[in-house]
Amino acid sequence: MTITITAFERSPDGGKGLARDTRVRWALEEAELPYDVRFVSFAEMKQPAHLAVHPFGQIPTFEDGDLTLFETGAIVFHIAERHTNLLPADPDARARAVTWMFAALSSVEPPVLDLQTAKFAEGDKPWAQERMPLVFDRIRARLRQLADRLGDAEWLESSFSAGDLLMVSVLLRLRMSGILDEFPTLAAYVARGEARPAYKRAFAAQLAVNAPPTD
Amino acid sequence: MTITITAFERSPDGGKGLARDTRVRWALEEAELPYDVRFVSFAEMKQPAHLAVHPFGQIPTFEDGDLTLFETGAIVFHIAERHTNLLPADPDARARAVTWMFAALSSVEPPVLDLQTAKFAEGDKPWAQERMPLVFDRIRARLRQLADRLGDAEWLESSFSAGDLLMVSVLLRLRMSGILDEFPTLAAYVARGEARPAYKRAFAAQLAVNAPPTD
Repeated sequence: MTITITAFERSPDGGKGLARDTRVRWALEEAELPYDVRFVSFAEMKQPAHLAVHPFGQIPTFEDGDLTLFETGAIVFHIAERHTNLLPADPDARARAVTWMFAALSSVEPPVLDLQTAKFAEGDKPWAQERMPLVFDRIRARLRQLADRLGDAEWLESSFSAGDLLMVSVLLRLRMSGILDEFPTLAAYVARGEARPAYKRAFAAQLAVNAPPTD
Repeated sequence: MTITITAFERSPDGGKGLARDTRVRWALEEAELPYDVRFVSFAEMKQPAHLAVHPFGQIPTFEDGDLTLFETGAIVFHIAERHTNLLPADPDARARAVTWMFAALSSVEPPVLDLQTAKFAEGDKPWAQERMPLVFDRIRARLRQLADRLGDAEWLESSFSAGDLLMVSVLLRLRMSGILDEFPTLAAYVARGEARPAYKRAFAAQLAVNAPPTD
């Protein structure tokens, strides 16, 4: 049985790896699981066939035999739980790793996504420029807390986990803004994530789709 | 060993049950687990002692013997996984329930929280009124998709799960706005959640703290 995920036919980021399929690809690469990709257009994402799989009309989705999942966090958790050592064996350590998965998506990503909203959905509004510093301040407040907790540690808990996979993925969305450079330990943390061979394979796979080499 | 959670010394909502400790109380009540509550003031939440437990300086936290957790989603998952039938036994059904946990917190709650930001953090800005319809439109888009998926079903999957517990809790935040009334099946879904005896006990427990009866 082959795992099939969905991804953008053409990612809005042009291959920067910020679309959420990269997170799932990364988890699958850490697990050394082969997978197929079904590409969907923006029009297809809003059609009944795709909405039957993903009620919010987004990517990625995950299909493995009779099981169909959506929500990146849930997919990464499923892969981590069944197939890899992305979650520690010790029950308490595992609960802490799961905590960081939720923290990445529930506490850190919302202010980060607000920056996307401010730039792309509301960027043409007359007040867009005036609001932007408020958006950045909320991101900064969160990053400061995260940096305080991480300290000089390599990963959020004692070894790399699905929590780091998601946290690094969320933080990568901030690279272009420059704000990550204000927090050198977080920038180094993100770089450690990107240096993992599994991440490199995931990144290369999405890049090949979204920015095919010209010859 | 007694479970101890943290909650606001005085909730900003004055006992409406929207603070996140209610979600954890609800899960603990579903599990019929006794628990203690340690109340923290806004000042204490930003002090090192609390930040050591919750790096983002919030409530709730969860302590059970040597295990300390933060992040409501992770705490509810922990309770559901170890102590209750809030997650189905069948592995695939369980993965789908976990999907709804992430969906509640990652896909539905962010636009809902944006309403709080718009009202409270940015309500005094000159553009606050002009921006509000955009915030509501993003919430509406998400609720419409959720209502389409729920249809006439009682719960998001075949039986009440931790996914419903979190989804109902997120939707409850919208009640005062009136927007939930635009989606009668979602309003009924929320009402089914509130009708559960465990929810009622959780609500009453937080109300007793935040709006003690006058005599």
